[in-house]
Amino acid sequence: MTASAIHDDLVVIDALQASNWDRALLEELRAGGVTAVHVTLVFWEDARATLDNIGRWHRFFEQHGDIVMPVRRAEDIEAAKAAGKTGIIFGFQNCSPIEDDLALVQVFHELGVRIMQLTYNNQSLIGAGCYEASDPGISRFGRQVIAEMNRVGMIIDLSHSAERTSLEAIEISERPVAITHANPLSFHEGLRNKSDDLLKALAQSGGMLGFSTYPFHIGGADTTLDAYCGMIADTVAMLGVDHVGFGTDMCRKLSAEYLDWMRSGRWSKEVDSGEAKTAGGGWPDWPEWFQTPADFPNLTQGLLDKGLGEADVAKIMGGNWLRFFREGFEPR
Amino acid sequence: MTASAIHDDLVVIDALQASNWDRALLEELRAGGVTAVHVTLVFWEDARATLDNIGRWHRFFEQHGDIVMPVRRAEDIEAAKAAGKTGIIFGFQNCSPIEDDLALVQVFHELGVRIMQLTYNNQSLIGAGCYEASDPGISRFGRQVIAEMNRVGMIIDLSHSAERTSLEAIEISERPVAITHANPLSFHEGLRNKSDDLLKALAQSGGMLGFSTYPFHIGGADTTLDAYCGMIADTVAMLGVDHVGFGTDMCRKLSAEYLDWMRSGRWSKEVDSGEAKTAGGGWPDWPEWFQTPADFPNLTQGLLDKGLGEADVAKIMGGNWLRFFREGFEPR
Repeated sequence: MTASAIHDDLVVIDALQASNWDRALLEELRAGGVTAVHVTLVFWEDARATLDNIGRWHRFFEQHGDIVMPVRRAEDIEAAKAAGKTGIIFGFQNCSPIEDDLALVQVFHELGVRIMQLTYNNQSLIGAGCYEASDPGISRFGRQVIAEMNRVGMIIDLSHSAERTSLEAIEISERPVAITHANPLSFHEGLRNKSDDLLKALAQSGGMLGFSTYPFHIGGADTTLDAYCGMIADTVAMLGVDHVGFGTDMCRKLSAEYLDWMRSGRWSKEVDSGEAKTAGGGWPDWPEWFQTPADFPNLTQGLLDKGLGEADVAKIMGGNWLRFFREGFEPR
Repeated sequence: MTASAIHDDLVVIDALQASNWDRALLEELRAGGVTAVHVTLVFWEDARATLDNIGRWHRFFEQHGDIVMPVRRAEDIEAAKAAGKTGIIFGFQNCSPIEDDLALVQVFHELGVRIMQLTYNNQSLIGAGCYEASDPGISRFGRQVIAEMNRVGMIIDLSHSAERTSLEAIEISERPVAITHANPLSFHEGLRNKSDDLLKALAQSGGMLGFSTYPFHIGGADTTLDAYCGMIADTVAMLGVDHVGFGTDMCRKLSAEYLDWMRSGRWSKEVDSGEAKTAGGGWPDWPEWFQTPADFPNLTQGLLDKGLGEADVAKIMGGNWLRFFREGFEPR
């Protein structure tokens, strides 16, 4: 069986994309054989603005229901696979939509939101982001939010959280948590990548790591597919094969203005480009082997070329996330 | 079989109460054998404040799940009957929660809202309320909202709407609509009661009228149960027995301050007491035969005493609403 034929049979899950969606981008997902994708509804929006973003997706589902469908339970991902559609999983990259209101966790869960980051780069009402100089860990409100997310079935995402906040969240949460899009620090030094200690604590508690393809998380566009898949093989050796998948952090068709919003929201007059070390702080170039989600078959090929067995490749490409979501999306 | 034994077997539905709920009030519902009640979440609240009110109900369901449960489909009403609980149907007495945003119709439907009034006494973005001097009918936005409510399965309620707005809504809506709480003008003259022409148009389109027990809709607390049930028998003679039920408009434990909010929201510096012709414009006295929802068995008794057959009484007490909700709560 060719890698391409193997890929076509897989449940392929991308645990984070931040793209500015249109029909053409949805078609890229289909071209890449993507069964389900976790889409970003929010970076800094409050509750009311989040309702707008949810409303926009409802319209999208009306307009493009022939190729995409909403995912509220893991069964919906299987239904998407059977129907040849891509399932859309709603998520927030920040806790801003719940404002200071514990009740909004259930409200947004009822609106289909299944994954929420506790922090986005900065200190939030819950904990510290990965760009803060100081990390006080999980706040009083944060403990309440974690318990409520555990209760309703909303997955805690620590991708942009600082180390202490992340370790405490893993400890406090009674259900496994996720880092949907990041890589090991040992592969590439960067504020968004994660220490081996943190990744081991994550896996030991039953959690999941999604490997990012974002250029600043892999050491730039020149990083080879072989090196990238080598990192995955090394991480599998460290954590076991059941705790990893992909969260590409793909950012398609986002304007320079939107990049400013992602980075600076309303909290700074200056644009803080973080680790964006490109000239002018704009969007980086992506590696030639992952230009768009249509390139997902390259990842299957790369893992097979690294000598990973077909069963393990199936887990990494989507099987692990499917298992994790089957438990994690349900109320207690 | 005694009236009380007959009542115990019935599915009893109250298509509107506006009470300030607490445990004791929920117990009154159980004492009255109320299978389901349409509760008021909103008079003038915007989208964000409405999320708060929904969040409060989520907490209520956690705290009092032994006696109440949420209703999203008609089947939930049957489940409530089987479990000896009261089903709670979410509704808005105004269109204020959707602001000027068509997308919020589906958003609130997903949050469980199943009934929405197009107007509350005043002109809204959709149409005219029953206290306005002039009635322009359904607005451009209103036509969009009606179509969207039809699509998602949210019932249009015209209880506080003016006549032309109501007739146009019945005409424009492709699904039957409701007047959840009002009485015929021919029984009692009042701005909130409805003309025979409107009621006939409502019934002919498959709609439902819920009879109110609110003192200002029946001619005061001295109106007898016999006279009230006589009105029901007369209305059954006019509309047929399949288009009527109850919507008591019961208002328990609402403070004077809340009465001001209901009547004047943020739109007037003066309190407009409307038809509240009590001294000081406060809460009126209720008839001795309907002091609280625990008195619901009196209505069954009154209808039987009027000579209505048991099958017809079962329809009026809740069977008609159950049939109407079975169709009306579902998306198209």
